[in-house]
Amino acid sequence: MSESVVPVNLADRLSRFSDLWSQKTVAVLNDYEVKVAKLKGEFVWHTHEDTDELILVVSGRLTIRLRGADVVLEPGELFVVPRRVEHCTAADEETAILLFEPAGTINTGDAGGSMTKAAEVLV
Amino acid sequence: MSESVVPVNLADRLSRFSDLWSQKTVAVLNDYEVKVAKLKGEFVWHTHEDTDELILVVSGRLTIRLRGADVVLEPGELFVVPRRVEHCTAADEETAILLFEPAGTINTGDAGGSMTKAAEVLV
Repeated sequence: MSESVVPVNLADRLSRFSDLWSQKTVAVLNDYEVKVAKLKGEFVWHTHEDTDELILVVSGRLTIRLRGADVVLEPGELFVVPRRVEHCTAADEETAILLFEPAGTINTGDAGGSMTKAAEVLV
Repeated sequence: MSESVVPVNLADRLSRFSDLWSQKTVAVLNDYEVKVAKLKGEFVWHTHEDTDELILVVSGRLTIRLRGADVVLEPGELFVVPRRVEHCTAADEETAILLFEPAGTINTGDAGGSMTKAAEVLV
């Protein structure tokens, strides 16, 4: 059986790293990427001008702050942040998420700054 | 809080229907759709000429048959079926999956037949 038919186990991929706010690409679909990340604390407010962004919580608890409202996600819950909607993610406890968005999407969107980091491939 | 900031709970969405092999759209991301479905038994061999297809198992156990190899997925495991790769999904027990692919992707791809069914919106 070739390597290409081994499925991606999310728990396995998440066990391979410990750095926070660092997206890891675990699969590619057309010109989109499936990424995982571990979060704790609060990210920077930012906007993606050209794309929606899907976030699915794998473990922990995530708050996606929008201007005027919070979206709280438990494991097994997902939310699509629409393009051009300013948002900020925050987690009191360490939280693992799956992201789905076009390849090359910058984690800090239009905001830039010290938390900007390209996704690393984790296969 | 407006309706748009309520997250999508996969277990909730899966509790709302019981028909097998019927994809339900639960979220939209750009021109892609997040869908869920319940499977039991065996689907038809088919190919998607123009798109990869992501399948993530939520519960149960899924075999994605490829010509010459099987990919077995447990909950929390995903696989991207590359475009133009013939495949057939099969499940001995009722299995719930999440699909991610371009909007309008036909479930039976090039094969057609009686199991062809457009995705229904389940919001």
